[in-house]
Amino acid sequence: MTDTRKKSKYREAGVDIDRAAEVLRNIRQSIQSTHTPDVLSSIGTFGAPVRLDTRRYEDPVLVMSVDGVGTKLKLAFMTGTHDTVGQDLVNHCVNDILVQGARPIAFMDYFATGRLEDGVAESVIEGLAKACRENGCPLVGGETAEMPDFYAAGEYDLAGCIVGIADRSGYVDGSKVAPGDSVIGLLSTGLHTNGYTLARKIVFESVGLTAGDVLPGTDRTVGEVLLAVHRSYLGTVEPLLDSGVINAMVHITGGGFYENVPRVLPEGVTAVIETGNWTPGPVFEFLEKHGEVSKEEMYRVFNMGIGFLLVVPECEAGRVLGDLSSRGTRGVRIGRIEAGGGGVDVRLPD
Amino acid sequence: MTDTRKKSKYREAGVDIDRAAEVLRNIRQSIQSTHTPDVLSSIGTFGAPVRLDTRRYEDPVLVMSVDGVGTKLKLAFMTGTHDTVGQDLVNHCVNDILVQGARPIAFMDYFATGRLEDGVAESVIEGLAKACRENGCPLVGGETAEMPDFYAAGEYDLAGCIVGIADRSGYVDGSKVAPGDSVIGLLSTGLHTNGYTLARKIVFESVGLTAGDVLPGTDRTVGEVLLAVHRSYLGTVEPLLDSGVINAMVHITGGGFYENVPRVLPEGVTAVIETGNWTPGPVFEFLEKHGEVSKEEMYRVFNMGIGFLLVVPECEAGRVLGDLSSRGTRGVRIGRIEAGGGGVDVRLPD
Repeated sequence: MTDTRKKSKYREAGVDIDRAAEVLRNIRQSIQSTHTPDVLSSIGTFGAPVRLDTRRYEDPVLVMSVDGVGTKLKLAFMTGTHDTVGQDLVNHCVNDILVQGARPIAFMDYFATGRLEDGVAESVIEGLAKACRENGCPLVGGETAEMPDFYAAGEYDLAGCIVGIADRSGYVDGSKVAPGDSVIGLLSTGLHTNGYTLARKIVFESVGLTAGDVLPGTDRTVGEVLLAVHRSYLGTVEPLLDSGVINAMVHITGGGFYENVPRVLPEGVTAVIETGNWTPGPVFEFLEKHGEVSKEEMYRVFNMGIGFLLVVPECEAGRVLGDLSSRGTRGVRIGRIEAGGGGVDVRLPD
Repeated sequence: MTDTRKKSKYREAGVDIDRAAEVLRNIRQSIQSTHTPDVLSSIGTFGAPVRLDTRRYEDPVLVMSVDGVGTKLKLAFMTGTHDTVGQDLVNHCVNDILVQGARPIAFMDYFATGRLEDGVAESVIEGLAKACRENGCPLVGGETAEMPDFYAAGEYDLAGCIVGIADRSGYVDGSKVAPGDSVIGLLSTGLHTNGYTLARKIVFESVGLTAGDVLPGTDRTVGEVLLAVHRSYLGTVEPLLDSGVINAMVHITGGGFYENVPRVLPEGVTAVIETGNWTPGPVFEFLEKHGEVSKEEMYRVFNMGIGFLLVVPECEAGRVLGDLSSRGTRGVRIGRIEAGGGGVDVRLPD
């Protein structure tokens, strides 16, 4: 291709339209592998059209979310691992709309970089496509932006947005949450996608580890632990959605327990979280100890080993835990709903 | 607020959760002013819920798009003007789905910065909200990411995604385009949001102007000309949508006429664009001359004064031009559809 390229002022200025088209060709098949019959066009239209089969919904509610990967991307840059951050992003977004009972119908990404390096955009988008397939969510569009002078060499930013749908009757808004309800926690795979600015500072600056070092207390490298893919809870939670037993869900993201739990609670109740009911795991213990981070801040910044919460009536908790267990997922009773002044009461150990 | 803030390791590491919450409080009213009754929740839910009134559509098609502002943002940084780039982004996205006959129902933004400076995020989001109100499109969600070490001081990136809807009968996919059709161009306000890497290089590096200098051939400063807001064509085009006269539309964005026109054409036709039919205007003349950019590349990088195209049957062209004119919009006959091998034939002057 290079030989036939015409002299271009735009390319001299740092933007290579041909390279962008090449990226699109390379990933076309991967993107199309995510498509369902509802996706009406192939790649290249201005907007991405997705047919909405209204016979399947009495009163459909679209539920949408946008998010980025944040500074977890720095781990991808350090290790040259570019095929997992896309999975992080899709799974994060899937969880955000799952909180309200929605199943994904479309995902779009925004990939911005200083210069389109060979293979990097392709790897990132492969990761997006993999997670989209796993979640049954078509990857319908994307913007690949080459912005010289914005991003350092070899670096990029990645954001995405998801559109999902729930029928009004299955839409979960937390209004049914009542005193006595149980709070069930589902394990995370690690830090997921939040707290990385602090975690990197502790691990790489304060302690001075490298990505290839084994993380103390584990048998995995720092890079492996910190790049562990953000878990999607869709497969785990979806079988419970139609049963109507879930009064609320929480995705523990940026802001940890303190910021996220109150987002789904009605007035007049408080969620009590008994942190003694589970062990966060070695990466969180390492960060707390070596970062000299207070217990409270740990629960404000990190997910502490629990990435997603289900709030269910106490009388259903046993059945839900049994159902999860029968499908290979461990749920942990981590708290309960009490009458109260709102918000969350994170009971920390002395 | 500062006095009562607790000592925080996360803030020491460069991420200020309190400041992010403060931004949200400052812009809450502005965001809510964009909401319609279909937006089911206030700010703060994990996903943004929008009710879809299926009684209004027989066979609804969601049309979605994601985009960024690109390096036009550098002009915002240079001039300290942060309230227009959000308008650029929303209008760009609105046009992208308008191409397929869709009207917007929701917009979400991604704002990423190194450090949340006082007032900057607020100005950017005010700009988004203003354009959302003007386009009747609720701003339903957003991610404000503070990513130290990613963005230079005072800089940020801004992307957004839009969801729109068209009934299947009103969905425009270009399949009706036929030889003989007229191509009508609608004027742009300037560069809109593409070609800025090249334009900045020419204006600031090759010629050595500053943002405060008057751009030769105009009575406006370089900053004013280059920050002119990307025009939304929704208000202009919407009255024509239901009439069924539009066979195809094109948004002239990155890739100019060469890349964008072919995206909406069926096989067996070629669009002939007679560039002699209009004058691009002084900013494009300046860039071509001082950048020593070939004519062809000018039409490949920039919109050349025409931001949006309508393809209509020849017999309807006069009526469409009259209708546009009666509503204060000038349309220009810039070409026609011919039988051919596909793509676009941009007729350049000698």
